[in-house]
Amino acid sequence: MLIVQKFGGTSVKDAERLRNVARIVTDVYKGGNDVVVVVSAQGDTTDDLIAKAAEINEKPSRREMDMLLASGEQISASLLAMCIQKLGIPAISLTGWQAGFLTSSAHTSARIRRVTPDRIKKELDQKKIVIVCGFQGLSRYDDITTLGRGGSDTSAVAIAAAMHADLCQIFTDVEGVYTADPRKVTNAKKLKEISYDEMLELATLGAQVLNNRSVEMAKKYNIELEVLSSYTNTPGTIVKEKVKMEKMLISGVAKDTDVARLSVTCVPDKPGMVFKLFSKLAQRNINVDVILQSVGRGDTKDIAFTVPIDKGMEAKAICEKFADNVGADVVDYDDNVAKVSIVGAGMESHAGVAAKMFEALYEKQINIRMIATSEIKVSVIINKDDADRAVLAIHEKFFPVEK
Amino acid sequence: MLIVQKFGGTSVKDAERLRNVARIVTDVYKGGNDVVVVVSAQGDTTDDLIAKAAEINEKPSRREMDMLLASGEQISASLLAMCIQKLGIPAISLTGWQAGFLTSSAHTSARIRRVTPDRIKKELDQKKIVIVCGFQGLSRYDDITTLGRGGSDTSAVAIAAAMHADLCQIFTDVEGVYTADPRKVTNAKKLKEISYDEMLELATLGAQVLNNRSVEMAKKYNIELEVLSSYTNTPGTIVKEKVKMEKMLISGVAKDTDVARLSVTCVPDKPGMVFKLFSKLAQRNINVDVILQSVGRGDTKDIAFTVPIDKGMEAKAICEKFADNVGADVVDYDDNVAKVSIVGAGMESHAGVAAKMFEALYEKQINIRMIATSEIKVSVIINKDDADRAVLAIHEKFFPVEK
Repeated sequence: MLIVQKFGGTSVKDAERLRNVARIVTDVYKGGNDVVVVVSAQGDTTDDLIAKAAEINEKPSRREMDMLLASGEQISASLLAMCIQKLGIPAISLTGWQAGFLTSSAHTSARIRRVTPDRIKKELDQKKIVIVCGFQGLSRYDDITTLGRGGSDTSAVAIAAAMHADLCQIFTDVEGVYTADPRKVTNAKKLKEISYDEMLELATLGAQVLNNRSVEMAKKYNIELEVLSSYTNTPGTIVKEKVKMEKMLISGVAKDTDVARLSVTCVPDKPGMVFKLFSKLAQRNINVDVILQSVGRGDTKDIAFTVPIDKGMEAKAICEKFADNVGADVVDYDDNVAKVSIVGAGMESHAGVAAKMFEALYEKQINIRMIATSEIKVSVIINKDDADRAVLAIHEKFFPVEK
Repeated sequence: MLIVQKFGGTSVKDAERLRNVARIVTDVYKGGNDVVVVVSAQGDTTDDLIAKAAEINEKPSRREMDMLLASGEQISASLLAMCIQKLGIPAISLTGWQAGFLTSSAHTSARIRRVTPDRIKKELDQKKIVIVCGFQGLSRYDDITTLGRGGSDTSAVAIAAAMHADLCQIFTDVEGVYTADPRKVTNAKKLKEISYDEMLELATLGAQVLNNRSVEMAKKYNIELEVLSSYTNTPGTIVKEKVKMEKMLISGVAKDTDVARLSVTCVPDKPGMVFKLFSKLAQRNINVDVILQSVGRGDTKDIAFTVPIDKGMEAKAICEKFADNVGADVVDYDDNVAKVSIVGAGMESHAGVAAKMFEALYEKQINIRMIATSEIKVSVIINKDDADRAVLAIHEKFFPVEK
């Protein structure tokens, strides 16, 4: 089997953790597998380097930031190679460009264009464990690029795709994907399996287990992912296309408190109004989420939607200008809201899933301000103060505590 | 003019020092020059990385050490680029491989095979200051290599040679090359000029201002070097082929206390004896310096020589085996010695230079144990305790204090 394993910054943060990773990796290798390991920079290295740059230039060029930051994985990758060699197993570290990562030239958030894993294959053929610097690649101008935060997950999946790996394991500091945040919901359950789509919905909801781009890529190339912990020796959660339903209606409850709600009222009920507003927001790279359009009163209608909270003020300004231009009414802005969602492939075939969620909220007297649904997700916008109570109530409704 | 400037680790150790370097570099650029800057890793970075590796593997692979250490210059180079950009001047940092450094694959002590400065030229044509990671390159196997300690000097001279630069400035924490160690000899004088050969002799004597390989390369390609300080704004010492004599007989006095003296007595006076011994030492990479062979007593002769002190014991063992094999007598080992030398192109044409040195030692009652001479150097081996007094006495003889 060819197995790609990815370890994040916490997993390689010091000599002790590196030794732990070396043990995990060599165990798999000794089982007769080819192993490609993708690593992030150690612990706080990336933040430390960013601080160094900020001390010198508060607006450093992105090209130079990439040059600077890429050194972080070079350090962790070579140290891990030394650590594996110490265990008597041949190993070699490769930078992003040595590993064949060709990317766009959008520095600090480059996209992988192609992975040409010739060098990786050559080293695997020589029975070496290959350690690849995650998060980085090379532009067509021969400049070092980085993929942006979380990019190491994407690096791992890209290698798995390019090499048709049998499995891509993403090691983190949690044991897998849970039905709710286990720090908040005590009887949250670890999922054995979850589909790509559910994982994507959960990731956008702020359950930051896996980087979204990496899940999209895994779905596209049908790479089986496993999310597991580098601290414990237990199976994690498998992310793949088709999952067994196990009578489970939903796979998880998640909340996102980093949202702001905007509404424009009394928009003239003419064609093109919604298009005008949302194309302006898109031009400024503002992702609009839950959208609600009222049926309208007379010849006007109301439009409400949510945006990421850090884009809230910018979105508000755009709305105000739009309202002015088209003669709409007041713009209402509220960032004291939260989005709570249930995600699950099961709800496609089971009626009443949304109703069950609403029932849970009603029982706790939690007011729903907006609702949005997709095939595998139901989201509600509620007051921020109610968010934790809402998650608990919904989770209990779908995953009753066994007595 | 095309000027190559090299800054060592101390010169770029923190944000403040980097800003200082940025000022020096941009001043030269604003004078209408093309500037290529070669940097070492910041301050103790290299030592810190070596310590990290040692914690993990006491015998790390050299290939992985190079991967690890090369990150150091990547950090300092990108930070300097940001620092120059902050001053409003376009700048770009390049790794060793981006700058076109092709080296042998002798990891941790690679030799530069070729510099192909296409990328550097392209960036200079765009009026950028180009910052190059010193000390590193790429092997034919596409692996990152390092040139070994002091390699950044060599990187700078190699670029100057490949690009036919008008001047190569080596910035250090001393103001130039002195007639003796200025920390020890208070009236040591800074030299305006010194020839390549004299510089080479001084470097091997432990006056560690310039890396020897870099001087050899500068001589080979006739690159004018300037050794100067990044702390003061004063002209340094020019190193070039022909220097004005300025009535100066010698250019400096230097001592080396890291030597050990070995002697084998009663070696049979037959052909091939000396060859046998020294070829054995050469096989073990032990550099033999001052060699003395007695005229012999009867049918035996005595051989004495010096070696670097860290190879002393190894050399002693070789000598003992040799003595056993050829039926020679006792091997005498003494590491309580020092080598004191005078260096100067002037002595070629001036008789009595050596005599003047011996006179100085005689006046101080310092016993000479061995003597070796070359066209531009006279070295004596004396007791280690006498070394500092000897340097002072000789310096005073050749550079009398002006009253």
